Amino acid sequence: MEKKKVAVVGATGYTGSEIVRILAQHPGVELAMITSESRTGEKFSDVHPFFQGIVDKVLQSAAELDRAASGANVRVTSDGKSDTAGNSRETIEDVDLVFLALPHGVSMDYVKRFAGRSFRIVDFSGDFRLGTPDVYEAWYSKKHIYPEGFGDAAYGLPELYSERIHLAPLVANPGCFPTGALLALTPLFASGLITGEHVIIDSKTGVTGAGVKASATNMFSNVHDNFKAYGIKTHRHTIEIQKILEDVARNGEKPSQKGVSPVQFTPHLLPVDRGILTTAYVRPDEPTTASALQDLYRRFYRDKPFVRICDAPPSIKDVRASNYCNIYVDFDERTGNVVVISAIDNLVKGAAGLAVQNMNVMFGWDETTGLAHIPLQP
Amino acid sequence: MEKKKVAVVGATGYTGSEIVRILAQHPGVELAMITSESRTGEKFSDVHPFFQGIVDKVLQSAAELDRAASGANVRVTSDGKSDTAGNSRETIEDVDLVFLALPHGVSMDYVKRFAGRSFRIVDFSGDFRLGTPDVYEAWYSKKHIYPEGFGDAAYGLPELYSERIHLAPLVANPGCFPTGALLALTPLFASGLITGEHVIIDSKTGVTGAGVKASATNMFSNVHDNFKAYGIKTHRHTIEIQKILEDVARNGEKPSQKGVSPVQFTPHLLPVDRGILTTAYVRPDEPTTASALQDLYRRFYRDKPFVRICDAPPSIKDVRASNYCNIYVDFDERTGNVVVISAIDNLVKGAAGLAVQNMNVMFGWDETTGLAHIPLQP
Amino acid sequence: MEKKKVAVVGATGYTGSEIVRILAQHPGVELAMITSESRTGEKFSDVHPFFQGIVDKVLQSAAELDRAASGANVRVTSDGKSDTAGNSRETIEDVDLVFLALPHGVSMDYVKRFAGRSFRIVDFSGDFRLGTPDVYEAWYSKKHIYPEGFGDAAYGLPELYSERIHLAPLVANPGCFPTGALLALTPLFASGLITGEHVIIDSKTGVTGAGVKASATNMFSNVHDNFKAYGIKTHRHTIEIQKILEDVARNGEKPSQKGVSPVQFTPHLLPVDRGILTTAYVRPDEPTTASALQDLYRRFYRDKPFVRICDAPPSIKDVRASNYCNIYVDFDERTGNVVVISAIDNLVKGAAGLAVQNMNVMFGWDETTGLAHIPLQP
Amino acid sequence: MEKKKVAVVGATGYTGSEIVRILAQHPGVELAMITSESRTGEKFSDVHPFFQGIVDKVLQSAAELDRAASGANVRVTSDGKSDTAGNSRETIEDVDLVFLALPHGVSMDYVKRFAGRSFRIVDFSGDFRLGTPDVYEAWYSKKHIYPEGFGDAAYGLPELYSERIHLAPLVANPGCFPTGALLALTPLFASGLITGEHVIIDSKTGVTGAGVKASATNMFSNVHDNFKAYGIKTHRHTIEIQKILEDVARNGEKPSQKGVSPVQFTPHLLPVDRGILTTAYVRPDEPTTASALQDLYRRFYRDKPFVRICDAPPSIKDVRASNYCNIYVDFDERTGNVVVISAIDNLVKGAAGLAVQNMNVMFGWDETTGLAHIPLQP
Repeated sequence: MEKKKVAVVGATGYTGSEIVRILAQHPGVELAMITSESRTGEKFSDVHPFFQGIVDKVLQSAAELDRAASGANVRVTSDGKSDTAGNSRETIEDVDLVFLALPHGVSMDYVKRFAGRSFRIVDFSGDFRLGTPDVYEAWYSKKHIYPEGFGDAAYGLPELYSERIHLAPLVANPGCFPTGALLALTPLFASGLITGEHVIIDSKTGVTGAGVKASATNMFSNVHDNFKAYGIKTHRHTIEIQKILEDVARNGEKPSQKGVSPVQFTPHLLPVDRGILTTAYVRPDEPTTASALQDLYRRFYRDKPFVRICDAPPSIKDVRASNYCNIYVDFDERTGNVVVISAIDNLVKGAAGLAVQNMNVMFGWDETTGLAHIPLQP
Repeated sequence: MEKKKVAVVGATGYTGSEIVRILAQHPGVELAMITSESRTGEKFSDVHPFFQGIVDKVLQSAAELDRAASGANVRVTSDGKSDTAGNSRETIEDVDLVFLALPHGVSMDYVKRFAGRSFRIVDFSGDFRLGTPDVYEAWYSKKHIYPEGFGDAAYGLPELYSERIHLAPLVANPGCFPTGALLALTPLFASGLITGEHVIIDSKTGVTGAGVKASATNMFSNVHDNFKAYGIKTHRHTIEIQKILEDVARNGEKPSQKGVSPVQFTPHLLPVDRGILTTAYVRPDEPTTASALQDLYRRFYRDKPFVRICDAPPSIKDVRASNYCNIYVDFDERTGNVVVISAIDNLVKGAAGLAVQNMNVMFGWDETTGLAHIPLQP
Repeated sequence: MEKKKVAVVGATGYTGSEIVRILAQHPGVELAMITSESRTGEKFSDVHPFFQGIVDKVLQSAAELDRAASGANVRVTSDGKSDTAGNSRETIEDVDLVFLALPHGVSMDYVKRFAGRSFRIVDFSGDFRLGTPDVYEAWYSKKHIYPEGFGDAAYGLPELYSERIHLAPLVANPGCFPTGALLALTPLFASGLITGEHVIIDSKTGVTGAGVKASATNMFSNVHDNFKAYGIKTHRHTIEIQKILEDVARNGEKPSQKGVSPVQFTPHLLPVDRGILTTAYVRPDEPTTASALQDLYRRFYRDKPFVRICDAPPSIKDVRASNYCNIYVDFDERTGNVVVISAIDNLVKGAAGLAVQNMNVMFGWDETTGLAHIPLQP
Repeated sequence: MEKKKVAVVGATGYTGSEIVRILAQHPGVELAMITSESRTGEKFSDVHPFFQGIVDKVLQSAAELDRAASGANVRVTSDGKSDTAGNSRETIEDVDLVFLALPHGVSMDYVKRFAGRSFRIVDFSGDFRLGTPDVYEAWYSKKHIYPEGFGDAAYGLPELYSERIHLAPLVANPGCFPTGALLALTPLFASGLITGEHVIIDSKTGVTGAGVKASATNMFSNVHDNFKAYGIKTHRHTIEIQKILEDVARNGEKPSQKGVSPVQFTPHLLPVDRGILTTAYVRPDEPTTASALQDLYRRFYRDKPFVRICDAPPSIKDVRASNYCNIYVDFDERTGNVVVISAIDNLVKGAAGLAVQNMNVMFGWDETTGLAHIPLQP
C-alpha cells in the first residue's frame, strides 16, 4: 500500500488527539504534519502526555500548509522540527489530505484559504454540512464566508453517501449526534415506512462532546453523579438530522410525498467520557413487527461493516473506542410506535473514526482499513 | 408533638435504609421496630455500617408484629432485643403505622396478614397501585392473592390525592418512575390541554433502582462509564403511569372525552447512585407558549412545597438526597411539541421520602415535617 | 436557645455553600448575612440553584460588615436587599460570629480589617494555622500581612484543642488533609508510642478539595476513571500536620524527647466529589497488637461524638455528607508497622462541619448541635 | 511471520476477554481454541457481546486439549464446533502455547494435567510465582498439588527475567500489584541504593481486579463515589513483591548483604474500571537527588519499550488500555525518603498484555509485537 501523506490541522482538542491515535497506526498513511496555533513548537506529546514515546512530533503552524501551497519548499526534519530555510527537509507540499479538527466558523476560513489546492479535505465542523448558507446562518447565527464550498462538499456518512464521498474534494464530517440518529432512523425513512406525525430523538452523550476547554459545563463535580438535558429545541444538530432525513426520504427506495415531520431532538449530558446513546420514537403508517423491522435493518446494512444490528438494547460500552454503531429496533404493538436505539463512540464513529472511514472511501481503500479497533470493555 | 410509633418491615434494601435515615430524625415518630427476616438478631448498623453509633437497633422478625396483633404482650428491651416472655419489654402492640419496604408479590402477603389490625400501612411495592387485580396480573405475571386490599388503597402521590391519602388505611406508595413522570405530565392532562396522539416518556435512573442484591445488572464495570435502555415496551411502570394519567384526565379541571393515548415509556440506566430524570414529549391540541405552560405549572403546584418549577432544565444533583421534584416545561413552536423534564431522587421523592410525606398527610401533619433535607451538592 | 447571628463571607465556593447548607438548619443561629464580592446583589440560589426556595437570600458585599463596624446603621430588608439609608432594616452590627470561607492570602486581609470588632471569627484558610509567620512564609511563599493574628488564633480541631477554641477570638479551621491525618495519628503520638523513624501519610481526596473554579485539574475527563498523585513533597498541609503532631507529642500523656521525624505526605486525586481517605504508616518503639491499639483509640476518643473507631477499614461513603471521622488501626507483626486509616468528608468534617463544630464549642453549646447528619449512602 | 497456534483456557473473565482482544489482532498467532467449562458450546461473543462480528468463535471445553494430547485427532469444524469423530476438522493437537486465565488453585490442576505436553504455558494465576510450595501454602492457605511445576516456572516479568522466560516451558505471569510495584522499585534494589528500614507500598486498583463475578465487593453503589483499603497486612501479593525484590537485591549490580526489610503492602479499591497506581516509599542509605534517581531509572529501563520514565506524576489514564508502565521517581530532601509512583493498566500490563509480552519473548519475537496499543484518553 503506497502511503498517502495526511495532515491534521488543530491537534489540541479531543478529536485532534483521537484522529492522531488512529492515523498513527493506519497502514495507508504517513502523518506528515500536525498543527496547532496555540502550541506551535511544542511536541504533540507535551500537549497529550499519554503519547510520550509514541507521537513526539513537533506541532507546526497551519501556515506551513499555505507556504507549501505557494511553492515554498517546506520540509519537516526527521526530529519533527520544520525548517523553512534548510534543504534536507521532507517536503509537505504534496500532502494528499487534510483533516480540519477545528470549531465551526474557523473551519470555513481554512477551507476558503485552501481553495484550489491539490489536497482533499475532511472537515469536522458543521460549516459545510447543511447544503446552503441560509440554513447555516439561521441555525449557527453566523455569516457564512465561503458559500462556494457547499458545491464541493459531500455529507460524510459513508453508509449513505459513499459514492459522493469517493469523489468529493471536501467531505463534511457529520455531527456526533446526527451520526447516531441517522444510522438509527435511515432504514425507516428510506423504505417509506414512516411518513408523518412525530419524530422524537432523545440522545445522551458523554462529556467529551463538550470539548477540551475547562468550563462549568465539563467540571467534574457538575457532571459526575449527575445528568441533565440541554439545548432543548435549539441544538444545531436538529437541522442536520432533519435535512438528511428529508434527503433520505426523497431519494429512498420508496420516495415519500409527505416529507419528514419536524424532528424533536433533545441532547442530555451523561457522566461518562465517551459515547452517545440515541433513543428514537417514530410511528409507521401501518403496524409492523419487531422481526420485520430487524430484517429491514439487517438488509439495509448488510454490506456496512461498522453497523451491527443487535438482539438486545446496546450499551455505549459495547462500542467504546471502536468505529461500530450498534442498533436495536423494536415495535410496540400497544402504542404503535417504533423504538430505535443506537450506540456509538462520539469520538470515534461520531468524529475521528468516521473521518478516517471517509478518507478510506475517498482513496478507494477498504472502509475498514486502520479501523479494526475492538471495543474496549470494561 | 405526640410521637407516633412506626415500624419498618424489610430493612436490608436501599429503601429500608433510606427510610430509617429519614425517620431517625423525624420529630413526630418513634422508630419502634425494624424487621428483617434474613438478618434477624443482628443490629441495623451491622447491615448498614454507616449507621454505626446512630441506629444500632436490633433487627426483629416481622412475626413480632403478628404476635403483637394476637394479643401477646410483645416488648422490646432497652438494648433492642425482643423478649416474648419477659415483662420489662416495651410494648409494640400499639404501633400506629407500618412501612412495608418489600418487593412486589411479598407485600400483598403482609397486607393480607395484617388485615383488621389497627395500624395503617404504607406499602412501597406495586401490589396495590393499579386499582384492580386483573391489570396487576396482566403486567406483573402473578396472581394477586388479596384483591380485597384494593378497596382500602389510596395511590400515594400527595400532590394529587392528599384527601384520599389522609383517610386511607393502606397507601400504595408510587413507583419511582411514575412519581417523576406523573408530576411532569399531570398539569397538562388535568387542564385538558392534551388529548391525543403520542405520549413519549424517556426516563433515566440511577442504579439503586435495581435494588441491593449483587447481580450483573448492578456490577460496577457493567454500569460505570456506561449507559443503556432496558425494559423497552414492557416495564411495569408503564401501566401505572397510564392509569393515573387517565384518572387525572377524567377528573381534571376540564375532563377529556378522548382519554389518554397509550403511553410509550422507556427506562435507561445511568452510571449514578441516585436520581431519575424524565424527559416527556406530548403534543397539545392547540399551539401554546413556554410561558403559558410555566404559568400553568406554577399555578397547579402553588401549594405543593416539594415541587419546584425551574427556569432551566434541572439536573438530578439539584434534588439529590432531598424530597424535591424539579420541573422544567417548554413548548417547541417548530414541532408543536411540549417538552417536560422532571428530576427527583429515586430513593427519596421516588420512595422513602414520599412514604414519609404520605405518613405526614395520613397523620394530619404538615407535609414537610421531617423532610426539610437540603439537596446535597456536589 | 437564643439565636446567635452569624455571617458567611465568601459564598460562591464549595465550602461556602456547604456551610450555608448546615447553618440553614442549625437551631442556634440566624444566618444574618452571606457575602460575595463577585456576585453581590444576586440571590444565593442564583449561584447555587439547588437552594431554590430554601435559601434565596441576597448576597451582600463584605464591606457591609465594615460599615456596620464603623457605626453605620446597616440593615437588611425582608427581601434581603441591604439599604444603608432606610430605617426599616434589620441591623447586622451585632453579628456574633463570622465564617471566612476565603482562600489563603485573602483571609488574613479580612482578619486584619476586622481587628477590634466584637464578633469572633472562624477562618477556613491556612493563614493562621501555623503558629508563626516565618513558617507560613516558607511554605506559602507569601508575606504574612498580619502576624499579630497568630496570638489570637486557636487551631480548630476540637477533639484536641476544645478549651482553647472555646475562648479564642479567632479559630483557624484546619486543612482537610490535616484533619483526617491528625485524628488518625494523634493517639499514637500523644501516648508516646511512636518516637522515631518514618511517618508516611498517603492521602486520597475527592475533587471538591480543588475548589469550584473550572480548570484542567478538575475537568471531568481528566478526573473521571482516573487517579494520580500531586504535590509530592511540597504540599502545604505537610507542615501543618508536622507542627500539630509535634505539639501533641510534646504535650501528650507521655511527652517525648525525640520529637517527630519529618512527615512524608502525599496527596492523590480521587474521581469522587467528596471524601478523604488517609492511610498512615508509622513504627512504634516497641511491638504492640491490633487490639491494644484499638483500645487506645477507643479510650482516647471516648467522649468525642464524631470519631468512630471501626472494626474494619472504613470507606469514604461511610461518612459522606456527615461530620464523622471513621478510624481503623492495625498492627502488622511481620513488618512492625502500625497502619492507621481514617475517612472523612472533606467538605464537612474537613471544612464546613468542623467550622460549625468549632462554633458550637466557642458558644459553649453541645458539639453536635446542628450536626446530626446521617451519612448518605449510597 | 509463521503463525503460532495458541489457546486461551478460561474465557469468561476480564483477563480472558482482554487477552482475546489482544490476540485477535496479533500478527503472529492463530487463536486456535478458547475454552470455558461453564459456557461450552456458546459463542465467545454471547459471553462478551462487544465482540459480536469480531470473535464469534464457539467456546470449547478444555478437555479438548487433553484429548488432543492423547493422540485423538481432534478438529474444529469451520463453524467452530468440535467433532471428535469427523475427519474434516482442523487439528488442534499441535497447539504451541496455552494461556491459563484461571483462578489460583485451579491453574495448578491444569498445569499438572498438561505435564509432558509439547505446548508451553503462560499461567495467569499465583500458583507458580513463589518459587517453593511452602511459601505458597503459607500465603494461599492451600495445599500445592504440583510442586514439580516450580522447577519449570519462570517469573514472567520480561523487564527483569527475559532470558529465563525465553526458555521456560511454564511462565508464571506476575500479579497485577507486583508488576506495578516491582517495576517501580527494582532499579533501587538492583543498584544497592536501598538496604534497610521501611518499604511502604500503597497501591490503588480499579475494580476489574476483583474479577467478573457479581458480589457486594464490585457492586456499583459500593464502589462508585467511594474508596477504601482492603487486605491490610494479609494480601497475597505482599510475599510475591518481597520474594522478587529479594532476588533482585541479591543478584543486582551491587548485591546487598542486608536483604530487604519486610514489605508493607496496602491495596485500595478505586472507583474506576482499570488501572493500578502504586506509591512506594523507601529510604536510601545515603541522601541522593531526584535527578540522580531519574538518570538511574532511565538507564535501567533504556531498552525496555514499555517502561516510560516521566517528568511528572503519572495518572492511570496515561496508560489505560495499553501495555505501558509509567514511572515517576523523586527524592525528598526534608525526609530522606525516595517516593516512586508507577501506573499500569491492571488488565493489560498487569495481566493480558504482559502475558502476550511473555509469549513474544518465549517465541523470540520482538517484545512489542501485537502490543502497540496507544493509551486511550479520555
